[in-house]
Amino acid sequence: MLSTQVEIRVRYAETDAMGVVYHANYLPWFEIARIALLEKADLSYRELEAEGYLLPVLEAHLKYAAPARFDDRVIVTATLSEAPRVRLRIDYTVTLDGRTLTTGHTLHAFMDRAGRAIKPPLRVMTRIGVFFPPGE
Amino acid sequence: MLSTQVEIRVRYAETDAMGVVYHANYLPWFEIARIALLEKADLSYRELEAEGYLLPVLEAHLKYAAPARFDDRVIVTATLSEAPRVRLRIDYTVTLDGRTLTTGHTLHAFMDRAGRAIKPPLRVMTRIGVFFPPGE
Amino acid sequence: MLSTQVEIRVRYAETDAMGVVYHANYLPWFEIARIALLEKADLSYRELEAEGYLLPVLEAHLKYAAPARFDDRVIVTATLSEAPRVRLRIDYTVTLDGRTLTTGHTLHAFMDRAGRAIKPPLRVMTRIGVFFPPGE
Amino acid sequence: MLSTQVEIRVRYAETDAMGVVYHANYLPWFEIARIALLEKADLSYRELEAEGYLLPVLEAHLKYAAPARFDDRVIVTATLSEAPRVRLRIDYTVTLDGRTLTTGHTLHAFMDRAGRAIKPPLRVMTRIGVFFPPGE
Repeated sequence: MLSTQVEIRVRYAETDAMGVVYHANYLPWFEIARIALLEKADLSYRELEAEGYLLPVLEAHLKYAAPARFDDRVIVTATLSEAPRVRLRIDYTVTLDGRTLTTGHTLHAFMDRAGRAIKPPLRVMTRIGVFFPPGE
Repeated sequence: MLSTQVEIRVRYAETDAMGVVYHANYLPWFEIARIALLEKADLSYRELEAEGYLLPVLEAHLKYAAPARFDDRVIVTATLSEAPRVRLRIDYTVTLDGRTLTTGHTLHAFMDRAGRAIKPPLRVMTRIGVFFPPGE
Repeated sequence: MLSTQVEIRVRYAETDAMGVVYHANYLPWFEIARIALLEKADLSYRELEAEGYLLPVLEAHLKYAAPARFDDRVIVTATLSEAPRVRLRIDYTVTLDGRTLTTGHTLHAFMDRAGRAIKPPLRVMTRIGVFFPPGE
Repeated sequence: MLSTQVEIRVRYAETDAMGVVYHANYLPWFEIARIALLEKADLSYRELEAEGYLLPVLEAHLKYAAPARFDDRVIVTATLSEAPRVRLRIDYTVTLDGRTLTTGHTLHAFMDRAGRAIKPPLRVMTRIGVFFPPGE
């Protein structure tokens, strides 16, 4: 299992007229945690993109249990529970003071600049693979 | 069944560095179609809010099949397939020239300003109910 | 003079916790009006970009007199008061029921994909030039 | 003089199809730096709002010299050069590796929940005043 956490302080720009974080604005937070997850495996999304490997979102799922508000310092946890194959599923939780606000997951596949599905670069499989030792 | 369509022209602001619409930006489009759906049942979301009835998103699910790009004129269809009970599920498709780009659904419940779950106002059930005649 | 108007219906996503449109969200509206302005001169920003002509924003200025709110149908007017030379200045007003909410202007220059300043394509000068007859 | 700096890591969500940060997305960065500036004077914007003191943006001005890109770690500096009176002007610079990308300023006044201009709370004047000793 590969898992990491980032702290995000809620921006005023992320709130809406209900006085809470607008529901779409959790997806950029998931992305920040996803990029941190790759970094934990010594992978830079910026470098992958520069080499022509894009990692678009195929699916996104979100459940909202309680709202985040301006200035809250939420913790976003991203977890890769299974070794990636063609597709890569990442799970997320957003918590505030230990209380779960939002959960969700995203599904991804590697793609080239022309929009074609491609195999992930070897180092992605190797570096992430370290977190999924055989026999587990 | 209650269903409606809106045309949305993709804003430059909605694109990202992949050259396509950023995946979170479909949720505001779903919302525009959802508000149009309520209007088809002669319900104004603005008025409901002014009366203290909020309709927050409890869940959101999105599947991305193909990207939308700047200046595309996409059609977003919102559909209520079942008469709402406590919860209200709305399905969406985003198409371009008849080709499906994205599908998804959201789940909602009525809430008051204090964040408590409340029964929908009677006229919501009545006006939406018209589209779900008994015996169907 | 070249001037045009677009109607924009305020999205819930554009509001913030003050209950009004977040101040940054007027810039995408200016952009929508700017693209409509080019269209009035028979110019497609999408096509210009496809040919490698980008029109980035060099400066943006906004004055907020009164707020817009969810569901408001505001009118955004974009005006080109002087024939463009190297730089192109566009003025904007956002009104609601004839009352001015916001005014502003943006400054632009043509740029290629490598980020170098370039001369605008000839047809841009010609088609916009029609609106600025000599002797005026 | 009162001045502070925040580091912001550019989000993918903040980029556009030109491959750079969308021009409107600098305004939320200015806001983050502005809130940090208040904190340096021991003022919490969240608390001020809870007490009914809003600090809306009356004007915003931006000059874009060079673009920021995904994953850049930019430094946003906010500076209050003059003791605030009725209005409060804050200046900003966004830099990357010492190079200036963007400059700008915003103008503010205190407002109550009803949208009326009000005098700033006494502690705002006192705590900010400390940074502007008489005779300077």
